[in-house]
Amino acid sequence: MANVLTPQGEDFPRWYQDVVAKAQLAENGPARGSQVIRPTGFALWERMTAEMDARIKDTGTENASFPLLIPESYFRREADHVEGFAPEVWMVTQGGGKDLEEKLAIRPTSETIIGEYMAKWVNSYRDLPLLLNQWCNVMRYEMRTRLFLRSSEFLWQEGHTVHESYEDAHAFTLRILHDVYADFMENVLALPVLRGIKTEAERFAGALNTFACDALMRDGKALQMGTSHELGQKFAKAFDIQFQGKDGKQAHGWTTSWGTSTRMIGGLIMGHGDDAGLRVPPNLAPVQVSVMIVKDSDEVRAAARKLYDELKADGLRVKLDDRGDIAFGRRAVDAELKGYPVRIELGPRDLKNGEATVVSRVEGSKQSVPLGMIAEAVAAALAGAQQQLWDEALGFREAHTVDVASVDEAVEAARTGYARMPWDACGVEGEARAGQSAVTVRLL
Amino acid sequence: MANVLTPQGEDFPRWYQDVVAKAQLAENGPARGSQVIRPTGFALWERMTAEMDARIKDTGTENASFPLLIPESYFRREADHVEGFAPEVWMVTQGGGKDLEEKLAIRPTSETIIGEYMAKWVNSYRDLPLLLNQWCNVMRYEMRTRLFLRSSEFLWQEGHTVHESYEDAHAFTLRILHDVYADFMENVLALPVLRGIKTEAERFAGALNTFACDALMRDGKALQMGTSHELGQKFAKAFDIQFQGKDGKQAHGWTTSWGTSTRMIGGLIMGHGDDAGLRVPPNLAPVQVSVMIVKDSDEVRAAARKLYDELKADGLRVKLDDRGDIAFGRRAVDAELKGYPVRIELGPRDLKNGEATVVSRVEGSKQSVPLGMIAEAVAAALAGAQQQLWDEALGFREAHTVDVASVDEAVEAARTGYARMPWDACGVEGEARAGQSAVTVRLL
Ligand SMILES: [Zn+2]
Ligand SMILES: [Zn+2]
Repeated sequence: MANVLTPQGEDFPRWYQDVVAKAQLAENGPARGSQVIRPTGFALWERMTAEMDARIKDTGTENASFPLLIPESYFRREADHVEGFAPEVWMVTQGGGKDLEEKLAIRPTSETIIGEYMAKWVNSYRDLPLLLNQWCNVMRYEMRTRLFLRSSEFLWQEGHTVHESYEDAHAFTLRILHDVYADFMENVLALPVLRGIKTEAERFAGALNTFACDALMRDGKALQMGTSHELGQKFAKAFDIQFQGKDGKQAHGWTTSWGTSTRMIGGLIMGHGDDAGLRVPPNLAPVQVSVMIVKDSDEVRAAARKLYDELKADGLRVKLDDRGDIAFGRRAVDAELKGYPVRIELGPRDLKNGEATVVSRVEGSKQSVPLGMIAEAVAAALAGAQQQLWDEALGFREAHTVDVASVDEAVEAARTGYARMPWDACGVEGEARAGQSAVTVRLL
Repeated sequence: MANVLTPQGEDFPRWYQDVVAKAQLAENGPARGSQVIRPTGFALWERMTAEMDARIKDTGTENASFPLLIPESYFRREADHVEGFAPEVWMVTQGGGKDLEEKLAIRPTSETIIGEYMAKWVNSYRDLPLLLNQWCNVMRYEMRTRLFLRSSEFLWQEGHTVHESYEDAHAFTLRILHDVYADFMENVLALPVLRGIKTEAERFAGALNTFACDALMRDGKALQMGTSHELGQKFAKAFDIQFQGKDGKQAHGWTTSWGTSTRMIGGLIMGHGDDAGLRVPPNLAPVQVSVMIVKDSDEVRAAARKLYDELKADGLRVKLDDRGDIAFGRRAVDAELKGYPVRIELGPRDLKNGEATVVSRVEGSKQSVPLGMIAEAVAAALAGAQQQLWDEALGFREAHTVDVASVDEAVEAARTGYARMPWDACGVEGEARAGQSAVTVRLL
């Protein structure tokens, strides 16, 4: 097949750009760093939100919706928070043709506005834990942007909770990290993640502790895929989130916040993609199987439609590609680019033999399968693909992690992957020194 | 039960406000006319989006995501559109601490920015129809606001499509009106809707024709629940959406747009609610059945949990209310307020008799049912509630629609419901005269 993408080995960032454009995932928007997510890209996000939302609800968290615009004064109430976010804010100053009395920030994150309402809703220990989440858009002013990975506007979920005690809040932060984020990333996205604590320098503005899930991309660089923050009593004090405890005394709550975003689409692309395009794990894939006609004829069309209906009835996510007016070769390249795990190719010759060709994107295999056995072959190919993507990603990570003893060795090792070293041998000073070589201490 | 709400007959707008507050559906946000949708309200919206999204996808439409911020210059390209929306726009003028070179409008609707991208993506008749939708937030500056019904920020879906011909676009506009909007409103929301064409005065800014679905609220006033616009070639010309036709010639596309919003939550409340609160049709209800313990004991708890598990396994949307530390009476009032169609009350006495009490919110009935027959009783109660809500709404509309022959009669009749009259007897002049009495010509 012709190379439609810059090979990864030649220029990884350009390969990434090419995939995003050629697979029609996203484009730049008109405002600085904004993005248009096209249907193929958005379908990935819809599947991510469905899987994540179910896991979030399993923790007892409920969805809500808070306003886009936050009065500037709210930000000022928590000193570390305003310092961290003020430089990134987009500001609304006019409405209805007039200047507003108070400037309104487009939310870069919603701790402040949600804190304001939590304070109203929390009165007694009976109201706790209060577990909220919202799926929404946020904006941060960014100078250098890359589609999905760093954009001024992005889609995300942000969870915000209040608990009775430090222990409850701490446990919930970790529950989100492990049972929601890591579980989704490993079992659906097939990306092994490292879980750990960020250093003080990398912590969320206003947090006591930030836990993160990082995955290793195929260029040997780590990508932060999700974060879960212990906010201690800082926001509860700034917004006066108080409750009457079982002992009858007033106390401030303990809050957490946690988020994952459309950046995960970038992680999916760079964690599994190859020189032919995306490779989407079947557990995520919006299209698990594409049933394609090779050449147009009434018989082929009818047989393809029948296969499509059968696989769909089996509960699979299936696409029917019977666009006879577009050359098969072009459509096959497109299917590789978009990373559909399995294609079923059906032409007049296959049909004459009572067969179809089952192609696995990940295994790179092609096999003729009797029409009556397609369902089994597809199920096996999907299971195999999910496993192989996981095995490859895990093998890659193991091959790219080295144990080092000094910061200099770590900087060297970070050229091609992870360096694992004792924090004692690094420390805050070592972290700053590594930072000069664009190496960050990812997780403790 | 004590009156927790202002009765509808006393003051309908206050009743509405009371329901929204007491059922914990929503609250005012800090910025003018913004709103916080609380979990109970948001769960209604989640069910609405799920049902609508499935219907939208059935038309072949795909979801995408376009930016929140639209350059001011885009608005200026379609004259009627800018005139209609300019006064309502919220404007971003600063980002990253600096003034922006071009002001950016928070989208009040996205015809312009989506038109810009459609022009890139449409080249040939093979690219048509292009059927896109997005679920997002929009903002319009409003002076007088009411939660859900008229808010400065609201959540909605906006569909945007391009077609080869006037006929295709026209047919699609109607398909959305009937198969998506009216079908959802009638079969899920149990609200009979009138479908028709808006007069020129009430038309969407820039549209050739606006079709709408209106439902009658229990105060005798009509509420617009959804609109579907034929945009002709106006936006296609303003944004240069051109394609090469089958005949090899370049032509402008024909576009449509259509939307429904969180205002439907207001329609649900006012279309079915009564003096005890919401009445949610089972086909929509996020909670179809609430299994409640009357008094706390280990046996009652265990039996309630068992019922909950069984009903959930049957595919019902069930809530378990085993909050033994809150008085049963308070919880029952809350269940009425939130409009759960069916409650199952389980106390020690019920349990001793091997029974539970099944309460229907809509029918107002209570019956003791043997534990082994709960599933059947619940299924019957749910079906009955859906039907009764529809019958009541339809009966109410019929009782509140009168045929009139003159504008004066229409103004009189509109005090309590719909007036049906021939357009010949009204006309543009009559519409203006009726408008002086705050009566609008809803649909032709
Ligand atoms: Zn305080
Ligand atoms: Zn043109």
